[in-house]
Amino acid sequence: MTSSQSTTSAALAADPAPLPGGISLAHQVAPLVEALVADATQLRLAISTGPLGCRIVDAGISVPGSLEAGRRIAEICLGGLGKVALVPGGRFSPFDTLVSVTTTDPVTACLASQYAGWSLSHGDFFALGSGPGRAMAAVEPLFAELGCRDHGDHVALVLETGVTPPAEVVQEVASRCGVAPTAVTFILTPTSSLAGTVQIVARVLEVALHKAHALHFPLEHIVDGIGSAPVAPPSPDFLTAMGRTNDAVLYGGDVQLFVRGSSEAAQDLAKRLPSLASRDYGRPFGEIFAGYDCDFYKVDPLLFSPARVTVTAMEQGTSFTAGGFDANLIARSFGV
Amino acid sequence: MTSSQSTTSAALAADPAPLPGGISLAHQVAPLVEALVADATQLRLAISTGPLGCRIVDAGISVPGSLEAGRRIAEICLGGLGKVALVPGGRFSPFDTLVSVTTTDPVTACLASQYAGWSLSHGDFFALGSGPGRAMAAVEPLFAELGCRDHGDHVALVLETGVTPPAEVVQEVASRCGVAPTAVTFILTPTSSLAGTVQIVARVLEVALHKAHALHFPLEHIVDGIGSAPVAPPSPDFLTAMGRTNDAVLYGGDVQLFVRGSSEAAQDLAKRLPSLASRDYGRPFGEIFAGYDCDFYKVDPLLFSPARVTVTAMEQGTSFTAGGFDANLIARSFGV
Amino acid sequence: MTSSQSTTSAALAADPAPLPGGISLAHQVAPLVEALVADATQLRLAISTGPLGCRIVDAGISVPGSLEAGRRIAEICLGGLGKVALVPGGRFSPFDTLVSVTTTDPVTACLASQYAGWSLSHGDFFALGSGPGRAMAAVEPLFAELGCRDHGDHVALVLETGVTPPAEVVQEVASRCGVAPTAVTFILTPTSSLAGTVQIVARVLEVALHKAHALHFPLEHIVDGIGSAPVAPPSPDFLTAMGRTNDAVLYGGDVQLFVRGSSEAAQDLAKRLPSLASRDYGRPFGEIFAGYDCDFYKVDPLLFSPARVTVTAMEQGTSFTAGGFDANLIARSFGV
Repeated sequence: MTSSQSTTSAALAADPAPLPGGISLAHQVAPLVEALVADATQLRLAISTGPLGCRIVDAGISVPGSLEAGRRIAEICLGGLGKVALVPGGRFSPFDTLVSVTTTDPVTACLASQYAGWSLSHGDFFALGSGPGRAMAAVEPLFAELGCRDHGDHVALVLETGVTPPAEVVQEVASRCGVAPTAVTFILTPTSSLAGTVQIVARVLEVALHKAHALHFPLEHIVDGIGSAPVAPPSPDFLTAMGRTNDAVLYGGDVQLFVRGSSEAAQDLAKRLPSLASRDYGRPFGEIFAGYDCDFYKVDPLLFSPARVTVTAMEQGTSFTAGGFDANLIARSFGV
Repeated sequence: MTSSQSTTSAALAADPAPLPGGISLAHQVAPLVEALVADATQLRLAISTGPLGCRIVDAGISVPGSLEAGRRIAEICLGGLGKVALVPGGRFSPFDTLVSVTTTDPVTACLASQYAGWSLSHGDFFALGSGPGRAMAAVEPLFAELGCRDHGDHVALVLETGVTPPAEVVQEVASRCGVAPTAVTFILTPTSSLAGTVQIVARVLEVALHKAHALHFPLEHIVDGIGSAPVAPPSPDFLTAMGRTNDAVLYGGDVQLFVRGSSEAAQDLAKRLPSLASRDYGRPFGEIFAGYDCDFYKVDPLLFSPARVTVTAMEQGTSFTAGGFDANLIARSFGV
Repeated sequence: MTSSQSTTSAALAADPAPLPGGISLAHQVAPLVEALVADATQLRLAISTGPLGCRIVDAGISVPGSLEAGRRIAEICLGGLGKVALVPGGRFSPFDTLVSVTTTDPVTACLASQYAGWSLSHGDFFALGSGPGRAMAAVEPLFAELGCRDHGDHVALVLETGVTPPAEVVQEVASRCGVAPTAVTFILTPTSSLAGTVQIVARVLEVALHKAHALHFPLEHIVDGIGSAPVAPPSPDFLTAMGRTNDAVLYGGDVQLFVRGSSEAAQDLAKRLPSLASRDYGRPFGEIFAGYDCDFYKVDPLLFSPARVTVTAMEQGTSFTAGGFDANLIARSFGV
């Protein structure tokens, strides 16, 4: 069985508009993908041909990958509309390195591209697809809300997985995107890998936007944003690695959003947006997850947000901050 | 009436030398301007044809613009001789983002290009021109002191304004620079916009150089410099926005200068350079300005300088620091 | 007399493998060297033809050079496999600027390229060569251990010196690298110069790798690393300048290594790696050096390492930290 949210989306806009301003994520990102492949050796990635002739970039399964590979993959995830930097930030000693994220257009970069929202499964295989290919497929209900769909000749999709996708998934991605399987590049970043860690933590701004959307804050009111979170040390244990990358954002992430609208709306958003506002806040993510018998769907979806959020209401000149960092929890989670 | 400092400068060097080392700011900056225009959609800028066929880049009047647009405009302001980065610095929680400025040659980048020194007015229109076009016009007395003038085929000028310049100003800029009006690009960054905020705060190093010059420190003794200041949250109120961007530098800006000469001269410069040394230091800039009945020319010109300055006398190996950050004032000014 | 470790290395692998993955440092670095030369004027470097027609890049002898030149030279030293940034880090007030170093592949970038390991002398001339040219010559025993040798058409070598190398040294470098002297570029960065300061401090990650190697930690277990250290203020006095750049690393440097192997091995490495573990730790390097009658070879070679080291055992998910910053010593050394 090959499944996705396709049934839902099939009922939606038959011919949605291109992305805002006629931007093509596929076009923006193509040179970044080709550069990643060209530099595979020094980034310690492995390039191979996968099922149906698709291209596989292994960023941490049979090869070590690198922090720098994760940084570049994160920029690919942002559809070429953002920059990701590794900066000595000093927020959580001794895990001093912050992943810093800026974009030219956060809603398009983070929600239309970076968000891991395309559920891809077949048999035992399951992965959430993220990156610019999502906007070409546009099978998620989110794209109906964004009212846009990308077009291009080549598809790049990032999968947080340690397994090569089966032919059925490759075919589904190609079909949904309207290209041949040979025009699809899958970038595989296991949660336990260096590249995986960096590209997950680089979602600190995206989770803020996604939760703002879940809280029904109008996306068209989000003008800009900037975020940062610490690089979590990888673990070979999937649950530990997943716990740490989540904790990096939930207890160590910082985001500032610049929005339109009233001060009340900005204050309300600031109050509700940080992880602190979730009923599950307060324990390492691994413990929370275990407490729900490792059932992801029992975790409060509103937990997934940065530790601290500052919302600036640009039309009012006011700013509101809520949440805060939890250095003790980060130390306990990262384990030093 | 179209006015500028042209009367003063007309009496100056008839045929000044090109810029130090034969650098052409116009040449350096051209690819950055064309890239800005090419990426206008994703940066949320509007490109249009203005009076007499000049090119207008709207970075925050009819369009939202972005922090990233401001960062790139700041690099254009530096004549392509500097780098501007947005970095999570942690200096002023929760306004964590610092604008960091480095240049290859600070006197040329900041004073011959970035300084907002070209007074352009006609009727109700008034704006201070900054960026590489100033060095082609060279109408300011400063250029006689710098002893240089740039030449080029295309003019890029940044105006901190919310209004398109009238035909008379376009003509004046074109004439002074020796090009047709169609070869002039005006980049408009209102003080209240995201791009405006970033490009103003990115002047933290420039104000240090300009004040050093006002204090008669020999510019040829300034070898290098580096600076940073927090991104002020924008306000739709011009005075508030202007106040905050000034406070970001005056109470939150940091600069290190590397100079030639004696330890005494370096120590004297460090002592006199920070904003602390001004009689107007201590209150938010908006209050100072209001206290002078909003008459800019009553404000102590020596107020405009970074909060903290470190001067390293390279030929002596000595360093001197003065001034300091005022986190309380920043919090009060930025308003959280 | 022209000497080097050639005798030792001549006995080693007659035909070593190319660099890991077929990377050519010479190929990677060529565009960076040409860009440095093309931008010489704005970076305030002097380009000239030296003995036997070699190319000399003077980065601080007859010209001032710049911090930015040092940053770019540091990236050349890393063989084009790393990034060096100047970041406002706030670790040591008021010397706020950190040099931050990341690489795609730290062992190749730092040890096969950046390490200043090629001893070049003739008559009174002595300098340690660093940068990608070392891997083409491969005269150091280290290359036999690394088991690799680079090939290329052009040689770039960085010398921490204030003197142009004599013809004999130029000839030796050309011969060892198998190119004509006209295909060799020497980049000269005196210890007292801005560029020298930055490119030395940018060795913070390299000294960690080099000491890990000296401690017999298997290099193939080092997967990734990241480091930072403060920019030391230059001094015209060689010993003071050398002391400060060493102190920046020894008492202000931070490195995180990501390694394979057991937790025990990682913990042992963390414990032994920081400068704290050396018998000579605790005083400014200038004092230590003077205490040994300025005989470099009397200084404990295990002193040369970052102040703080965090080692993450990737296969275990464990991290170990040892050492720490000494802000008082940095203040005393940098002299404010």
